[in-house]
Order: sequence, then structure tokens, then C-alpha cells
Amino acid sequence: MLASELARRLEGRLEGPDTELTGVAPLEEAGTSELSFLHSTKYVDRMEHTSAAAVLVDREYDGPSPNALIRVTSPYAALRQSLEWLYPETDRPTPGVHPSAVVDPSARLGEEVAVGPMAVLEADAEIGDRTTVGPGSYIGRKVKVGSDCRIHPNVTVYRRCRMGDRVEVLAGAVIGSDGFGHSREEGVYRKLPHIGIVVLEDDVLVGACTTIDRATFGETRIERGAKLDNLVMIAHNCVVGPDTAVAGQAGMAGSTTVGGGVQIAGQAGFAGHLEVGEGAVVGAQAGVTKDIPEGSFVSGYPARPHREAQLQQAALARLPGLRKKIRELERRIAELEDRLRDED
Amino acid sequence: MLASELARRLEGRLEGPDTELTGVAPLEEAGTSELSFLHSTKYVDRMEHTSAAAVLVDREYDGPSPNALIRVTSPYAALRQSLEWLYPETDRPTPGVHPSAVVDPSARLGEEVAVGPMAVLEADAEIGDRTTVGPGSYIGRKVKVGSDCRIHPNVTVYRRCRMGDRVEVLAGAVIGSDGFGHSREEGVYRKLPHIGIVVLEDDVLVGACTTIDRATFGETRIERGAKLDNLVMIAHNCVVGPDTAVAGQAGMAGSTTVGGGVQIAGQAGFAGHLEVGEGAVVGAQAGVTKDIPEGSFVSGYPARPHREAQLQQAALARLPGLRKKIRELERRIAELEDRLRDED
Amino acid sequence: MLASELARRLEGRLEGPDTELTGVAPLEEAGTSELSFLHSTKYVDRMEHTSAAAVLVDREYDGPSPNALIRVTSPYAALRQSLEWLYPETDRPTPGVHPSAVVDPSARLGEEVAVGPMAVLEADAEIGDRTTVGPGSYIGRKVKVGSDCRIHPNVTVYRRCRMGDRVEVLAGAVIGSDGFGHSREEGVYRKLPHIGIVVLEDDVLVGACTTIDRATFGETRIERGAKLDNLVMIAHNCVVGPDTAVAGQAGMAGSTTVGGGVQIAGQAGFAGHLEVGEGAVVGAQAGVTKDIPEGSFVSGYPARPHREAQLQQAALARLPGLRKKIRELERRIAELEDRLRDED
Repeated sequence: MLASELARRLEGRLEGPDTELTGVAPLEEAGTSELSFLHSTKYVDRMEHTSAAAVLVDREYDGPSPNALIRVTSPYAALRQSLEWLYPETDRPTPGVHPSAVVDPSARLGEEVAVGPMAVLEADAEIGDRTTVGPGSYIGRKVKVGSDCRIHPNVTVYRRCRMGDRVEVLAGAVIGSDGFGHSREEGVYRKLPHIGIVVLEDDVLVGACTTIDRATFGETRIERGAKLDNLVMIAHNCVVGPDTAVAGQAGMAGSTTVGGGVQIAGQAGFAGHLEVGEGAVVGAQAGVTKDIPEGSFVSGYPARPHREAQLQQAALARLPGLRKKIRELERRIAELEDRLRDED
Repeated sequence: MLASELARRLEGRLEGPDTELTGVAPLEEAGTSELSFLHSTKYVDRMEHTSAAAVLVDREYDGPSPNALIRVTSPYAALRQSLEWLYPETDRPTPGVHPSAVVDPSARLGEEVAVGPMAVLEADAEIGDRTTVGPGSYIGRKVKVGSDCRIHPNVTVYRRCRMGDRVEVLAGAVIGSDGFGHSREEGVYRKLPHIGIVVLEDDVLVGACTTIDRATFGETRIERGAKLDNLVMIAHNCVVGPDTAVAGQAGMAGSTTVGGGVQIAGQAGFAGHLEVGEGAVVGAQAGVTKDIPEGSFVSGYPARPHREAQLQQAALARLPGLRKKIRELERRIAELEDRLRDED
Repeated sequence: MLASELARRLEGRLEGPDTELTGVAPLEEAGTSELSFLHSTKYVDRMEHTSAAAVLVDREYDGPSPNALIRVTSPYAALRQSLEWLYPETDRPTPGVHPSAVVDPSARLGEEVAVGPMAVLEADAEIGDRTTVGPGSYIGRKVKVGSDCRIHPNVTVYRRCRMGDRVEVLAGAVIGSDGFGHSREEGVYRKLPHIGIVVLEDDVLVGACTTIDRATFGETRIERGAKLDNLVMIAHNCVVGPDTAVAGQAGMAGSTTVGGGVQIAGQAGFAGHLEVGEGAVVGAQAGVTKDIPEGSFVSGYPARPHREAQLQQAALARLPGLRKKIRELERRIAELEDRLRDED
């Protein structure tokens, strides 16, 4: 694609010579036919030395100029779009049902659906237009998948779960497994049948080997645009709000509700039946045991306001010194006491 | 199923009109043909407004009465059974071997075994009566699976591992992978062949994407009725006692032995070669570095008695205040010292 | 195999009667036709009672002698080799492409390659000599796998990723999934296409259900001989150094670089963009938020030098006592103050 054509599609402005772009790379690595990007002023000095054919920059950018600039409103968003155009994904199965796939005759497939080799679609499964089902993936009975979804290889989607449009589920993820709820009968756990489902709304991303349990009753729900990283565990009846991001290996116990726009860092954990307010930020490895108010930032175990946690950590670091100080004060008090005793 | 028939099967007593029951739902959501349940007095006020056709209650229940009651010894156990009867699972493959499955001629299958599409059964595998092997699952050589087991889709069971009866393994789980044991030879790790196996006793549950490593020698053993949630890691040679529950993302290093009836909360971790006593309780994210006595409750990192951990947390929270207090005492001591110096 | 033949192959020396060895077992369990091993003087008293046909011992060993000894330079390394010879693995698919596998005609397979049932090899995949691809595994387009690799069942390897020789990837692992990098556009996350790859160098081990994300640009790289346990999460653009060991459920965020010979214990977590120096040791559940110098040992959250963390833990444990002490000092100061006031 020509730089001028890319600029046009991005509604940006090309400044400098027009070139055929063959790829995208960071400033320091880009070759003379590659596009690059400057998304943070931190890297502005790299602009002097880059060999890139063209660089995506902010409309107001006025630093050193390489071969060519493409001025856009958001260089990072423009980068994303350029990558999509210049690197059409090659993991996508070609449209059509691979002859090795096992698709129940009652399954309903939209237009241009691709079902990879070894995939299994059970009775009454419904797959929307242009959606792909990766090799070795399993789609249970009455599962409904929207349009333009990408189900990667070796994914399992259990019966009756539902996905909106543009949902992406990475390899090895499991959607709709039974929740970890048991009835204890004479000291023995017996699993409660989980008759609820999982709903993944539009634009949700589910990472590799992430597991989302179905609800006991009703729904476990991942709301519009929420993004879950790899190896995340979402228990039965949880709700994850819109545009919330959950980083790798984080987990939540049953019936916890997380608001929209929340940021959850890696390996954080949530007890069950909690409410996490909109826009909250949860630090890495935080252990959340109580509700979190809107907009707050918590960290540590048990999770507490981050500023508090930091003060406590700092105080803890000085604790050995504090003990010494107290022994010194005790000595000085004893001296004073001795002295007054002598005076008597 | 008629409410009267359900009551009969549960050995309970129906009070009120008999109705055809079409499903089960919580009190606040149940429709007029649905069964509901009251398993905690906390929700007793919902009994006034429920539309449920019948509600499972304790034999002694004497609160507000909706349309009909079914009195039983344990409403929660009765709920479990009702769910099983009213919602026959639809993920279960139909009995028989799917034509796409690859079953070695030497594999032995019991009666009414179901092997889903794309499943692979290696030589000398043995599958008990009424057991199901889900789509895309792999059963290694000489694996022995008992009766009435449910192996879900995309599960891997390595060679020679054994399962008792009524074992359930959820999607993506891996049973019998090599343990993480290496011989260090000239600075380079070389993996020790693991010749042991994994044994899952009767009624064990293994969650989605949970991994259980085979023993170096002998067995890694999950004992009768133990339940493992999703994304749990059990290393080589561990023993998990009967009716022990291990919540999501918890993990244990090699050769740790956990007693019966232990409750392990989410993301807890155990060092290797530990003994965890019967009936112990381990808090979420606890980092267990030492043996745990029978019946104790530990939390935090490093894990310590929960009461102690709480006192320490509380003291830590007041630590910044304590530093202030010490500075004040120091000032008062200095004043006393000055004063006595003046007197000299 | 005869004990004498084993001794010869190990370049060791047999002392005692020669026997046909049928297996390997620990000292206390070995039968009269089994090989055993003494790899730590801790277990030397077991030498008196073992029934083993022969025991691998150090060349200098001079303790109690069972039936026979095989003196070798490293008993543990000799154990590893003996296990490999006496227990040829039975999970390995037989060479050749299983008729149920789907192999693109453009894929290039080396000599004696084994492709298991239900495996899928996409266009231009390249598989080295004697490498095995397990049942149900997926090898994406242009993936390059070296010689003598073992890809276990139900593994996913995304497009263009590369492996050296003797790489082993356990069941359910995912190599090359998209990194968790998004462009935030008008409050909505949009996934950045990840055009980089994952490189697994020679002798790397990847555990069951471990996920390694591909780089945004360039490579996520696991260097020669590094070993990753189960359920580990390696984010985009990370580098894990040679002979580094990462235990179960540990995880690292994007662009973190770990040096060679590092030991990372279970459930440890790393923030992104960190540098971890060569030979460092990271304790279980440590939460690493800053660079770690070469050779240091850190633990706790936030991770700090282990000795410091221990002192702080010890101080914390005595903190409730410290509060009491301070109240006592305060009382003594008040008494001194009263007394001096009285004197005025």
C-alpha cells in the first residue's frame, strides 16, 4: 500500500515522498520501506535516526522529520488500523466448513462462516456471518455466536452460551464450564448442576486458557468491550462491566460484580459476592476481600487504598529501625528514672 | 414433572396445589410453573413475593407460604437432585463411538460408553460403563477410567493414569503431564522422565484447564470426593485428601500432602514437601511455607494462623500512627532530660 | 537391561552381582530386580534395608552396601539416563502421519516425523526430523519446528512461531497467542494486531496449559534450555534467559527481560518492562515491581531482598508486642512528668 493511500484511509496528511509500504516496525527497527509510529514524546529522539519510509505522528508534531510523516489524530489508533490493513491475519480458516469438521445438520451457519478442521458444532448451534471457528474447537448445543467473531483453535464453548458480535476467544479458552458450587451432603460434596449460561457481549476478548464458568442460575456476563487476558478465571454468576480490562492470571470467585472501565492487574484475586465500582483500579496480586468504591485504586493483601498500602509498606520497611529507636528510648527513660530515684 | 412426583422422589412432603414443574429458579425469578428453594433463612422475606409453583423448604419451616411447599430434610441437597432430574445435561455425547473418533482396537469400552467426535483412545485404554469421553479429548495408552465418569471436551489424559468411578474432568484439563523435575547437568536442566502416574479416586472433580502432574515414581493422588476448581496446579507426587476442596488458581509444589476435608481458597500456594492436616482451612492467596496442623486456619504470606495474621494486619494499619506516637514520646523524654540537666 | 550393561553405558563401575534390571524405584520401594539411586546423603540409612538389585551411588560412596552398587560421577544424572533407557515413552505417536490428521500439502516434514490423529498442520509449516506432533495439536502457517521436538496433545502453535531442536511443549499449551495490547479509542479498547512471533530456542520446555504471547513487533523469546512449568503466563515481547526455570502459575507482563540461570518460584509475578539479572532467585508468590540485580534473591510483595523481607516479617510478627511496650513507655514517661511537676 502506498503511503498516500494509507494517509487517505486514516484521514491523515502525508508530508514527504510517497512510498510503497511493505510493513510496520518500531522507529529503531523500521527499514526504508516500512511504516513506523511515534506514540509517545518519550521516543522523539529516535525520529532523528529512523530509516522508516513514513512515521505516524500527532497532528501537532513539530520535532525532527524523517523521510515522511503521516499526521493523524491518534497515532496509536492509526497504528492499529495500519497493522490490520498491512497484515491480514493468516490464522483465519478459509470460509466454508472443512471436510473433517463435524457439524450437526441442525446447526445454523451464517454467510462466509469458516469452520476449521476437527471443529465440532453440536445440534442447534448458531454461528453468525463471517465468524470463524478454529481447528479443534467445540461448540456445544444451542450455543449462539454472533457475527464477525473469531473462535481460535482448541476452544471449548459449552451448551447454550451466547456471544455477541466481534467477540474473540483465544486458543484453549473454556466458556461455560460448570461453576464450582456443591451441595455438601453427609460430609461429601456433590456438584450442583449449573443451569445458567455465559454471555459474552459484543467486542469481548477472552485470552488463551482463560476459563469462564456458567451461572448456577441465570448468567455469568462479560459486558461489551471487556477484555480478559490469558489464564484468567471468572467464576459462576460474575459480571464484568463494559470496557473493563482483566490482566493475566487474575481471578474472581462466584457472584462478584465488576463495574465498567475497571482495570485489574495481573494475578489479582477477588472474593465472591463483591461489588467493584466503575473505573476502579486494582493492583497486581491484590487480594480483594471487600467492596471497592467507584474510581478508587487498591493494592496489596488484603487490598486497601493504594496510598495507604504504600504508607504501610514504607512503615514496615522502617520497622526494624523503629524497634531500635524504642530500645533507645527505653534506656533513656530508665536513666531518668534512676536519676530521680537517686535524688530521693 | 409434577410437584407431587418430585416430593415423592425427594422423600419430602408437598403442601399446597400440585403443579407441573417446568424448571428451577431462585425465589425472586421463578415463574408460576417453576420450582424454587429456600436454603437460608436470610432470604425468608422473598417467600412472600415469589411466584414459584413450589418451594423446597426445611421440614421445620414456618414462615410465609407461597403457592406450595415441599418440605425436605435438606433443601440444598433436594435442589441439587431436582436440578439433575429437571435438567438432563445436553453436553453429554450420545452413547457409541462417533465415527470420527480414533479408538485403538485394543482399547476396551464398557457398556453404553460414549466417545465424542475427534476423541482419541490409545492402545489398551480401558473405559468403564456409561462413561463419556468428550469431543477432542485424548486418552493415552493403558489409561483406566472407571464407570459413570465424564471426561469433557479437549481434555488430555496421559498414559497409564487411572480414574475411579463418577470422576468428572472439565474441558481443557491435563492429567498426567510430566512433573517439573530436572537433573542439573553441567548447568543445564535435563528433564527427569516421570514414570509415575496420576490416580483420581471415585467422585473426584477436576476443573477446566487444571493440570495434575504425574509422579516421578509412584503416584500423584487425588482422593475420593476431592474437588479441584479451574486452573489449579497439582505438582508431581502430591496427595490431596478425601473431600478436600481446592478453589481456582490455587497450586501446590511437588510432594505436598493435603489431608481430608481441607478447604483451600483461590490462588493459595503451597511449597513442596509439606503436610497439611485434616480439616485445615487455607485463606485466599495464602502462601503456605510450613506444615499446617489439623483443623487450623491460616492466611497471608507467609501463611500463619489467621487470627495472628489479622492482628498483624491491624497493627500494620496503625503503624504510621505508631511512628508519630514514638516521635512524641521522644520529644517528651528530651524535655525531661533537658529539665534535669538544667537542675544540675 | 543387565546391570553391567547399564554401568557400561553410564561409564560407571558395577560392584556386586550382575542382574537383569526391570525398572527403577526409590530405595524403600525398589524390588529385587529394580535399580535404585542414592542422590543425597540424607537417605543413606535406607541403603541398609533396600531390596534393590543395584543402586546408583557417587564414586566416593562408602556407606552400607546392598546387593550391588553402580558407581557414577553424578547419581542423579545417571538416574535420568537410566529412566530414559528403561522406560521408553509410550505417549509418543508412531512415525508417520495419522490418516485423520490434516496436513497442508505445502507443509514440509522431516524424516521419521510423527503426526498424531486429529493434528492439523497449516500451509508452509516445517517440522524437523524425528519431531512428534501430538493428537489434536494445531500448527499454524509458516511455523518452524526443529528436530527431535515433542509437541504433546492439544497444543496450539500460532502462525510463524519458531522452535529450535529438542523443544518440548506439554498438553494444552498455547504458543504465539496475541499479546494483551490494545489501543484505547474513545474509551473503547481495540486489540492491536500482534505481528511479532514467539521463538523457543533449543531444549526449551513449556508446561501444560502455559501460554506464551507473540510479540507486538519482533519476538517473545524463550532462550536455550529455559524450562517453564504449567500454567505459566509469558506476555508479549518478554525474554526468558538460558537455563532459567519458571515454576507453576508464575507470570510476567509485557516486555520484561529475565536473564540466564534465574530461578522463579511458583505464582511469582512480574510487572512489565523490567530487567531481572542473571542468576537471580525470585521467591514463591513474589510480586516483582522493580528491576532485580544479578544474583540477588527477592521475595514478598512488593518483592525486596529476601533477608530484608524476612526481617520485616519478623518485625511485623512482634508488632502487636511492640505496641504494648510503647504504651508502657508512655506510662513511665507520664510518671516522670508528674513527678517533676510535683517537684515544681
